[in-house]
Amino acid sequence: MKIRRNETGFLVVLDAGDEMIASLRKLAEAERIGEASFTAIGAVRDVVLGYIALESKSYLRRELGADSMELVSAIGNLARLDGEPVVHCHATVGDREMRVYGGHLFQAVASVTVEIFLRVYDGEITRRYDPASGANTIQL
Amino acid sequence: MKIRRNETGFLVVLDAGDEMIASLRKLAEAERIGEASFTAIGAVRDVVLGYIALESKSYLRRELGADSMELVSAIGNLARLDGEPVVHCHATVGDREMRVYGGHLFQAVASVTVEIFLRVYDGEITRRYDPASGANTIQL
Amino acid sequence: MKIRRNETGFLVVLDAGDEMIASLRKLAEAERIGEASFTAIGAVRDVVLGYIALESKSYLRRELGADSMELVSAIGNLARLDGEPVVHCHATVGDREMRVYGGHLFQAVASVTVEIFLRVYDGEITRRYDPASGANTIQL
Repeated sequence: MKIRRNETGFLVVLDAGDEMIASLRKLAEAERIGEASFTAIGAVRDVVLGYIALESKSYLRRELGADSMELVSAIGNLARLDGEPVVHCHATVGDREMRVYGGHLFQAVASVTVEIFLRVYDGEITRRYDPASGANTIQL
Repeated sequence: MKIRRNETGFLVVLDAGDEMIASLRKLAEAERIGEASFTAIGAVRDVVLGYIALESKSYLRRELGADSMELVSAIGNLARLDGEPVVHCHATVGDREMRVYGGHLFQAVASVTVEIFLRVYDGEITRRYDPASGANTIQL
Repeated sequence: MKIRRNETGFLVVLDAGDEMIASLRKLAEAERIGEASFTAIGAVRDVVLGYIALESKSYLRRELGADSMELVSAIGNLARLDGEPVVHCHATVGDREMRVYGGHLFQAVASVTVEIFLRVYDGEITRRYDPASGANTIQL
Protein backbone atom coordinates (compact mmCIF):
# COMPACT_ATOMS: atom_id res chain seq x y z
CA MET A 1 0.00 0.00 0.00
CA LYS A 2 1.24 3.45 -0.95
CA ILE A 3 -0.49 6.61 0.22
CA ARG A 4 -0.25 10.28 -0.68
CA ARG A 5 -2.06 13.15 0.96
CA ASN A 6 -4.14 15.53 -1.09
CA GLU A 7 -6.31 18.54 -0.11
CA THR A 8 -9.15 16.42 1.27
CA GLY A 9 -7.60 13.16 2.39
CA PHE A 10 -5.57 10.49 0.66
CA LEU A 11 -4.90 8.80 -2.61
CA VAL A 12 -4.31 5.17 -1.65
CA VAL A 13 -2.75 2.79 -4.17
CA LEU A 14 -2.66 -0.92 -3.40
CA ASP A 15 0.06 -3.14 -4.80
CA ALA A 16 -0.60 -6.67 -6.03
CA GLY A 17 -1.16 -8.85 -2.96
CA ASP A 18 -2.54 -6.11 -0.68
CA GLU A 19 -5.98 -6.90 0.74
CA MET A 20 -8.26 -3.89 0.42
CA ILE A 21 -10.37 -3.97 3.60
CA ALA A 22 -7.41 -4.71 5.88
CA SER A 23 -5.31 -2.02 4.16
CA LEU A 24 -7.96 0.64 4.70
CA ARG A 25 -8.41 -0.41 8.33
CA LYS A 26 -4.66 -0.11 8.87
CA LEU A 27 -4.64 3.35 7.27
CA ALA A 28 -7.59 4.46 9.45
CA GLU A 29 -5.70 3.32 12.53
CA ALA A 30 -2.37 4.91 11.56
CA GLU A 31 -3.98 8.22 10.57
CA ARG A 32 -6.60 8.16 13.36
CA ILE A 33 -9.46 8.55 10.86
CA GLY A 34 -12.92 8.57 12.43
CA GLU A 35 -15.02 9.54 9.40
CA ALA A 36 -14.26 9.13 5.71
CA SER A 37 -15.88 8.17 2.44
CA PHE A 38 -14.21 6.64 -0.61
CA THR A 39 -14.53 5.38 -4.14
CA ALA A 40 -12.18 2.89 -5.77
CA ILE A 41 -11.45 0.96 -8.96
CA GLY A 42 -8.83 -1.64 -9.82
CA ALA A 43 -8.27 -5.33 -10.48
CA VAL A 44 -8.65 -7.91 -7.72
CA ARG A 45 -8.75 -11.61 -6.87
CA ASP A 46 -9.88 -13.74 -3.91
CA VAL A 47 -13.02 -11.66 -3.57
CA VAL A 48 -15.59 -12.42 -0.86
CA LEU A 49 -18.97 -10.77 -1.37
CA GLY A 50 -21.81 -10.70 1.14
CA TYR A 51 -25.61 -10.42 1.20
CA ILE A 52 -27.38 -9.71 4.48
CA ALA A 53 -30.16 -12.28 4.93
CA LEU A 54 -32.76 -10.70 7.18
CA GLU A 55 -34.41 -14.04 8.09
CA SER A 56 -31.16 -15.21 9.75
CA LYS A 57 -29.75 -11.75 10.61
CA SER A 58 -26.44 -12.79 9.12
CA TYR A 59 -24.42 -12.46 5.94
CA LEU A 60 -24.41 -15.06 3.17
CA ARG A 61 -21.01 -15.17 1.49
CA ARG A 62 -19.83 -15.98 -2.01
CA GLU A 63 -16.20 -16.40 -3.06
CA LEU A 64 -15.15 -15.21 -6.51
CA GLY A 65 -11.98 -14.30 -8.26
CA ALA A 66 -9.81 -17.41 -8.48
CA ASP A 67 -9.16 -15.61 -11.77
CA SER A 68 -8.44 -11.85 -11.61
CA MET A 69 -11.57 -9.66 -11.78
CA GLU A 70 -12.06 -6.01 -12.57
CA LEU A 71 -13.00 -4.03 -9.48
CA VAL A 72 -15.68 -2.16 -11.41
CA SER A 73 -16.99 -0.09 -8.52
CA ALA A 74 -16.23 0.20 -4.84
CA ILE A 75 -18.04 2.72 -2.65
CA GLY A 76 -17.52 2.83 1.07
CA ASN A 77 -16.83 4.61 4.30
CA LEU A 78 -14.69 4.48 7.44
CA ALA A 79 -16.18 4.64 10.92
CA ARG A 80 -15.54 3.33 14.44
CA LEU A 81 -17.01 0.32 16.25
CA ASP A 82 -16.11 0.10 19.97
CA GLY A 83 -13.39 2.64 19.19
CA GLU A 84 -11.78 0.45 16.52
CA PRO A 85 -11.69 1.47 12.82
CA VAL A 86 -14.24 -0.29 10.66
CA VAL A 87 -14.49 -0.29 6.87
CA HIS A 88 -17.89 -0.57 5.18
CA CYS A 89 -17.61 -1.16 1.44
CA HIS A 90 -19.92 -2.41 -1.30
CA ALA A 91 -18.48 -3.47 -4.62
CA THR A 92 -19.15 -4.82 -8.08
CA VAL A 93 -16.57 -7.06 -9.74
CA GLY A 94 -16.49 -8.11 -13.38
CA ASP A 95 -15.18 -11.26 -15.07
CA ARG A 96 -13.64 -11.71 -18.53
CA GLU A 97 -17.10 -11.85 -20.12
CA MET A 98 -17.82 -8.45 -18.48
CA ARG A 99 -20.48 -10.13 -16.31
CA VAL A 100 -20.87 -8.40 -12.95
CA TYR A 101 -21.36 -9.66 -9.39
CA GLY A 102 -21.88 -7.44 -6.40
CA GLY A 103 -22.59 -7.05 -2.70
CA HIS A 104 -21.03 -6.19 0.63
CA LEU A 105 -17.25 -6.49 0.26
CA PHE A 106 -15.63 -8.74 2.87
CA GLN A 107 -12.34 -9.22 1.05
CA ALA A 108 -10.56 -8.33 -2.18
CA VAL A 109 -6.85 -8.79 -2.85
CA ALA A 110 -5.27 -6.52 -5.46
CA SER A 111 -4.29 -8.65 -8.49
CA VAL A 112 -2.77 -5.64 -10.26
CA THR A 113 -3.61 -2.51 -8.29
CA VAL A 114 -6.49 -0.72 -6.55
CA GLU A 115 -6.81 3.08 -6.73
CA ILE A 116 -8.73 4.62 -3.83
CA PHE A 117 -9.68 8.26 -3.31
CA LEU A 118 -10.41 8.72 0.38
CA ARG A 119 -12.21 11.85 1.60
CA VAL A 120 -11.48 12.36 5.30
CA TYR A 121 -13.80 14.36 7.60
CA ASP A 122 -13.03 15.80 11.04
CA GLY A 123 -15.86 13.95 12.78
CA GLU A 124 -16.27 10.41 13.99
CA ILE A 125 -18.96 8.00 12.87
CA THR A 126 -19.97 5.43 15.48
CA ARG A 127 -21.33 2.02 14.54
CA ARG A 128 -23.12 -0.35 16.85
CA TYR A 129 -24.37 -3.91 16.39
CA ASP A 130 -28.08 -3.83 15.52
CA PRO A 131 -29.76 -7.04 16.74
CA ALA A 132 -32.80 -6.34 14.54
CA SER A 133 -30.79 -6.77 11.32
CA GLY A 134 -27.48 -8.37 12.26
CA ALA A 135 -25.60 -5.39 10.77
CA ASN A 136 -23.36 -2.79 12.42
CA THR A 137 -25.37 0.34 11.71
CA ILE A 138 -24.39 4.00 12.09
CA GLN A 139 -25.56 5.77 15.26
CA LEU A 140 -26.14 9.49 14.71
CA MET B 1 -33.80 9.65 8.12
CA LYS B 2 -31.00 11.03 10.28
CA ILE B 3 -28.60 13.68 9.05
CA ARG B 4 -25.35 15.13 10.30
CA ARG B 5 -23.39 17.97 8.78
CA ASN B 6 -19.76 17.56 7.88
CA GLU B 7 -17.24 19.91 6.22
CA THR B 8 -18.69 19.52 2.75
CA GLY B 9 -22.34 18.66 3.19
CA PHE B 10 -24.16 15.87 4.99
CA LEU B 11 -23.94 12.31 6.11
CA VAL B 12 -27.48 10.99 5.62
CA VAL B 13 -28.50 7.70 7.23
CA LEU B 14 -31.83 6.15 6.31
CA ASP B 15 -33.72 3.96 8.75
CA ALA B 16 -35.59 0.82 7.67
CA GLY B 17 -38.76 1.97 5.90
CA ASP B 18 -37.38 5.29 4.58
CA GLU B 19 -37.62 5.66 0.81
CA MET B 20 -34.37 6.98 -0.60
CA ILE B 21 -35.42 9.31 -3.43
CA ALA B 22 -38.18 10.97 -1.40
CA SER B 23 -35.86 11.35 1.60
CA LEU B 24 -33.20 13.12 -0.45
CA ARG B 25 -35.82 15.37 -2.07
CA LYS B 26 -37.09 16.31 1.41
CA LEU B 27 -33.56 17.07 2.58
CA ALA B 28 -32.89 19.21 -0.51
CA GLU B 29 -36.04 21.16 0.22
CA ALA B 30 -35.37 21.62 3.94
CA GLU B 31 -31.74 22.65 3.40
CA ARG B 32 -32.42 24.61 0.18
CA ILE B 33 -29.85 22.59 -1.76
CA GLY B 34 -29.53 23.56 -5.43
CA GLU B 35 -26.48 21.51 -6.39
CA ALA B 36 -25.06 18.38 -4.81
CA SER B 37 -23.53 15.03 -5.69
CA PHE B 38 -23.65 11.84 -3.64
CA THR B 39 -22.63 8.22 -3.30
CA ALA B 40 -24.49 5.66 -1.20
CA ILE B 41 -24.52 2.02 -0.10
CA GLY B 42 -26.96 0.04 2.02
CA ALA B 43 -29.66 -2.62 1.92
CA VAL B 44 -33.03 -1.95 0.29
CA ARG B 45 -36.34 -3.46 -0.83
CA ASP B 46 -39.20 -2.43 -3.14
CA VAL B 47 -36.73 -1.20 -5.73
CA VAL B 48 -37.93 0.31 -9.01
CA LEU B 49 -35.26 0.57 -11.71
CA GLY B 50 -35.62 2.38 -15.03
CA TYR B 51 -34.19 2.28 -18.53
CA ILE B 52 -34.80 5.16 -20.91
CA ALA B 53 -36.13 3.77 -24.20
CA LEU B 54 -35.26 6.28 -26.88
CA GLU B 55 -37.80 4.90 -29.38
CA SER B 56 -40.66 5.83 -27.03
CA LYS B 57 -38.88 8.67 -25.18
CA SER B 58 -40.01 7.16 -21.91
CA TYR B 59 -38.69 4.97 -19.09
CA LEU B 60 -39.24 1.23 -18.93
CA ARG B 61 -39.55 0.11 -15.33
CA ARG B 62 -38.69 -3.07 -13.47
CA GLU B 63 -39.65 -3.85 -9.88
CA LEU B 64 -37.24 -5.83 -7.73
CA GLY B 65 -36.63 -6.43 -4.10
CA ALA B 66 -39.65 -8.24 -2.68
CA ASP B 67 -36.70 -9.77 -0.81
CA SER B 68 -34.09 -7.38 0.65
CA MET B 69 -31.27 -6.52 -1.78
CA GLU B 70 -27.83 -5.05 -1.26
CA LEU B 71 -27.63 -1.46 -2.52
CA VAL B 72 -24.27 -2.16 -4.12
CA SER B 73 -23.76 1.27 -5.66
CA ALA B 74 -25.75 4.47 -5.85
CA ILE B 75 -24.36 7.55 -7.57
CA GLY B 76 -26.45 10.65 -8.02
CA ASN B 77 -26.99 14.36 -7.82
CA LEU B 78 -29.47 16.99 -6.66
CA ALA B 79 -30.73 19.76 -8.93
CA ARG B 80 -33.84 21.87 -9.53
CA LEU B 81 -36.68 21.42 -12.05
CA ASP B 82 -39.10 24.35 -12.23
CA GLY B 83 -37.61 25.47 -8.91
CA GLU B 84 -38.40 22.17 -7.17
CA PRO B 85 -35.67 19.81 -5.90
CA VAL B 86 -35.07 16.81 -8.12
CA VAL B 87 -32.95 13.74 -7.37
CA HIS B 88 -31.15 11.92 -10.18
CA CYS B 89 -29.71 8.60 -9.07
CA HIS B 90 -28.48 5.45 -10.80
CA ALA B 91 -27.99 2.28 -8.80
CA THR B 92 -26.97 -1.35 -8.83
CA VAL B 93 -28.69 -3.77 -6.47
CA GLY B 94 -27.59 -7.31 -5.66
CA ASP B 95 -29.57 -10.41 -4.68
CA ARG B 96 -28.59 -13.32 -2.41
CA GLU B 97 -26.70 -14.99 -5.27
CA MET B 98 -24.70 -11.72 -5.65
CA ARG B 99 -26.31 -11.20 -9.10
CA VAL B 100 -26.62 -7.52 -9.95
CA TYR B 101 -29.35 -5.44 -11.62
CA GLY B 102 -29.04 -1.77 -12.41
CA GLY B 103 -30.47 1.37 -13.96
CA HIS B 104 -32.08 4.70 -13.18
CA LEU B 105 -33.35 4.54 -9.59
CA PHE B 106 -37.02 5.47 -9.23
CA GLN B 107 -37.50 4.00 -5.77
CA ALA B 108 -35.68 2.08 -3.04
CA VAL B 109 -36.90 1.60 0.51
CA ALA B 110 -34.24 0.97 3.17
CA SER B 111 -34.62 -2.63 4.43
CA VAL B 112 -31.81 -2.17 6.97
CA THR B 113 -30.15 1.20 6.33
CA VAL B 114 -28.73 3.38 3.57
CA GLU B 115 -25.58 5.45 4.14
CA ILE B 116 -25.30 8.53 1.91
CA PHE B 117 -22.42 11.01 1.67
CA LEU B 118 -23.81 14.17 0.12
CA ARG B 119 -21.42 16.84 -1.22
CA VAL B 120 -23.24 20.19 -1.39
CA TYR B 121 -22.15 23.01 -3.73
CA ASP B 122 -23.12 26.68 -3.59
CA GLY B 123 -24.57 26.77 -7.11
CA GLU B 124 -27.84 25.60 -8.57
CA ILE B 125 -28.23 23.05 -11.34
CA THR B 126 -31.29 23.55 -13.52
CA ARG B 127 -33.01 20.67 -15.28
CA ARG B 128 -35.51 20.97 -18.09
CA TYR B 129 -37.62 18.38 -19.91
CA ASP B 130 -35.88 17.42 -23.15
CA PRO B 131 -38.48 16.36 -25.75
CA ALA B 132 -35.77 14.74 -27.90
CA SER B 133 -35.03 12.08 -25.25
CA GLY B 134 -37.87 12.18 -22.74
CA ALA B 135 -35.37 12.90 -19.93
CA ASN B 136 -34.96 15.95 -17.69
CA THR B 137 -31.48 17.05 -18.72
CA ILE B 138 -29.16 19.59 -17.09
CA GLN B 139 -29.10 23.08 -18.64
CA LEU B 140 -25.70 24.77 -18.23
CA MET C 1 -19.53 18.91 -23.70
CA LYS C 2 -20.55 21.69 -21.33
CA ILE C 3 -18.61 22.46 -18.18
CA ARG C 4 -19.21 24.61 -15.13
CA ARG C 5 -16.82 25.24 -12.28
CA ASN C 6 -17.85 24.58 -8.72
CA GLU C 7 -15.97 24.86 -5.41
CA THR C 8 -13.93 21.71 -5.95
CA GLY C 9 -13.66 21.23 -9.68
CA PHE C 10 -16.18 20.87 -12.47
CA LEU C 11 -19.63 19.70 -13.32
CA VAL C 12 -19.24 18.22 -16.81
CA VAL C 13 -22.33 17.51 -18.89
CA LEU C 14 -21.96 15.56 -22.13
CA ASP C 15 -24.36 16.06 -25.02
CA ALA C 16 -25.61 13.20 -27.19
CA GLY C 17 -22.73 12.18 -29.45
CA ASP C 18 -19.89 13.19 -27.09
CA GLU C 19 -17.50 10.36 -26.26
CA MET C 20 -16.80 10.27 -22.53
CA ILE C 21 -13.11 9.28 -22.29
CA ALA C 22 -11.99 11.66 -25.07
CA SER C 23 -14.07 14.49 -23.58
CA LEU C 24 -12.46 14.10 -20.16
CA ARG C 25 -8.99 13.91 -21.71
CA LYS C 26 -9.69 17.14 -23.60
CA LEU C 27 -10.89 18.83 -20.42
CA ALA C 28 -7.79 17.66 -18.53
CA GLU C 29 -5.61 19.13 -21.25
CA ALA C 30 -7.47 22.45 -21.50
CA GLU C 31 -7.57 22.92 -17.72
CA ARG C 32 -4.11 21.44 -17.09
CA ILE C 33 -5.48 18.91 -14.61
CA GLY C 34 -2.87 16.57 -13.14
CA GLU C 35 -4.95 14.84 -10.46
CA ALA C 36 -8.71 14.40 -10.23
CA SER C 37 -11.35 11.86 -9.28
CA PHE C 38 -14.88 11.62 -10.62
CA THR C 39 -18.22 9.85 -10.53
CA ALA C 40 -20.74 9.88 -13.37
CA ILE C 41 -24.14 8.61 -14.48
CA GLY C 42 -26.04 8.95 -17.76
CA ALA C 43 -27.15 7.06 -20.85
CA VAL C 44 -24.66 5.84 -23.44
CA ARG C 45 -24.17 3.78 -26.59
CA ASP C 46 -21.20 2.28 -28.46
CA VAL C 47 -19.65 1.14 -25.20
CA VAL C 48 -16.33 -0.72 -25.14
CA LEU C 49 -15.56 -2.50 -21.88
CA GLY C 50 -12.26 -4.12 -20.96
CA TYR C 51 -10.93 -6.89 -18.73
CA ILE C 52 -7.23 -7.16 -18.05
CA ALA C 53 -6.11 -10.73 -18.76
CA LEU C 54 -3.01 -11.37 -16.69
CA GLU C 55 -1.92 -14.40 -18.73
CA SER C 56 -1.51 -12.20 -21.83
CA LYS C 57 -0.86 -8.89 -20.03
CA SER C 58 -3.43 -7.23 -22.27
CA TYR C 59 -7.06 -6.15 -22.23
CA LEU C 60 -9.89 -8.26 -23.60
CA ARG C 61 -12.58 -6.04 -25.08
CA ARG C 62 -16.34 -6.35 -25.45
CA GLU C 63 -18.55 -4.01 -27.45
CA LEU C 64 -22.03 -3.24 -26.18
CA GLY C 65 -24.65 -0.61 -26.68
CA ALA C 66 -25.83 -0.81 -30.26
CA ASP C 67 -28.97 0.05 -28.32
CA SER C 68 -28.75 2.85 -25.72
CA MET C 69 -27.70 1.67 -22.23
CA GLU C 70 -27.95 3.25 -18.83
CA LEU C 71 -24.55 4.36 -17.54
CA VAL C 72 -25.33 2.95 -14.10
CA SER C 73 -22.01 3.78 -12.48
CA ALA C 74 -18.77 5.33 -13.61
CA ILE C 75 -15.90 5.87 -11.18
CA GLY C 76 -12.57 7.16 -12.36
CA ASN C 77 -9.59 9.44 -12.13
CA LEU C 78 -7.35 11.71 -14.18
CA ALA C 79 -3.58 11.40 -14.16
CA ARG C 80 -0.58 11.89 -16.49
CA LEU C 81 1.33 9.36 -18.60
CA ASP C 82 4.53 10.73 -20.21
CA GLY C 83 3.12 14.19 -19.42
CA GLU C 84 -0.11 13.56 -21.33
CA PRO C 85 -3.51 13.44 -19.62
CA VAL C 86 -4.89 9.95 -19.10
CA VAL C 87 -8.37 8.93 -17.97
CA HIS C 88 -8.88 5.76 -15.95
CA CYS C 89 -12.53 4.83 -15.61
CA HIS C 90 -14.47 1.69 -14.68
CA ALA C 91 -18.16 1.48 -15.43
CA THR C 92 -21.29 -0.60 -15.25
CA VAL C 93 -23.89 -0.26 -17.99
CA GLY C 94 -27.44 -1.61 -17.95
CA ASP C 95 -29.74 -2.80 -20.73
CA ARG C 96 -33.54 -2.63 -21.03
CA GLU C 97 -33.92 -5.75 -18.86
CA MET C 98 -31.83 -3.94 -16.18
CA ARG C 99 -29.06 -6.54 -16.69
CA VAL C 100 -25.64 -5.10 -15.96
CA TYR C 101 -22.23 -5.44 -17.65
CA GLY C 102 -19.04 -3.89 -16.36
CA GLY C 103 -15.31 -3.41 -16.62
CA HIS C 104 -12.60 -0.97 -17.61
CA LEU C 105 -14.22 1.71 -19.79
CA PHE C 106 -12.49 2.22 -23.13
CA GLN C 107 -15.31 4.11 -24.80
CA ALA C 108 -18.87 5.32 -24.20
CA VAL C 109 -20.75 7.79 -26.37
CA ALA C 110 -23.53 9.79 -24.72
CA SER C 111 -26.88 8.66 -26.17
CA VAL C 112 -28.79 11.21 -24.09
CA THR C 113 -26.38 12.81 -21.62
CA VAL C 114 -23.66 12.00 -19.10
CA GLU C 115 -23.39 13.94 -15.83
CA ILE C 116 -19.89 13.98 -14.33
CA PHE C 117 -18.77 15.50 -11.03
CA LEU C 118 -15.02 15.99 -11.23
CA ARG C 119 -13.00 16.70 -8.07
CA VAL C 120 -9.71 18.37 -9.01
CA TYR C 121 -6.63 18.25 -6.76
CA ASP C 122 -3.52 20.42 -6.91
CA GLY C 123 -1.10 17.52 -7.34
CA GLU C 124 -0.16 15.39 -10.29
CA ILE C 125 -0.54 11.63 -10.50
CA THR C 126 2.03 9.89 -12.69
CA ARG C 127 1.27 6.64 -14.45
CA ARG C 128 3.85 4.33 -16.01
CA TYR C 129 3.49 1.16 -18.08
CA ASP C 130 3.89 -1.86 -15.83
CA PRO C 131 5.31 -4.80 -17.82
CA ALA C 132 4.31 -7.26 -15.06
CA SER C 133 0.58 -6.62 -15.64
CA GLY C 134 0.26 -4.77 -18.94
CA ALA C 135 -1.51 -1.88 -17.17
CA ASN C 136 -0.46 1.76 -16.70
CA THR C 137 -0.20 1.88 -12.93
CA ILE C 138 0.15 4.87 -10.60
CA GLN C 139 3.68 5.69 -9.39
CA LEU C 140 3.67 7.31 -5.94
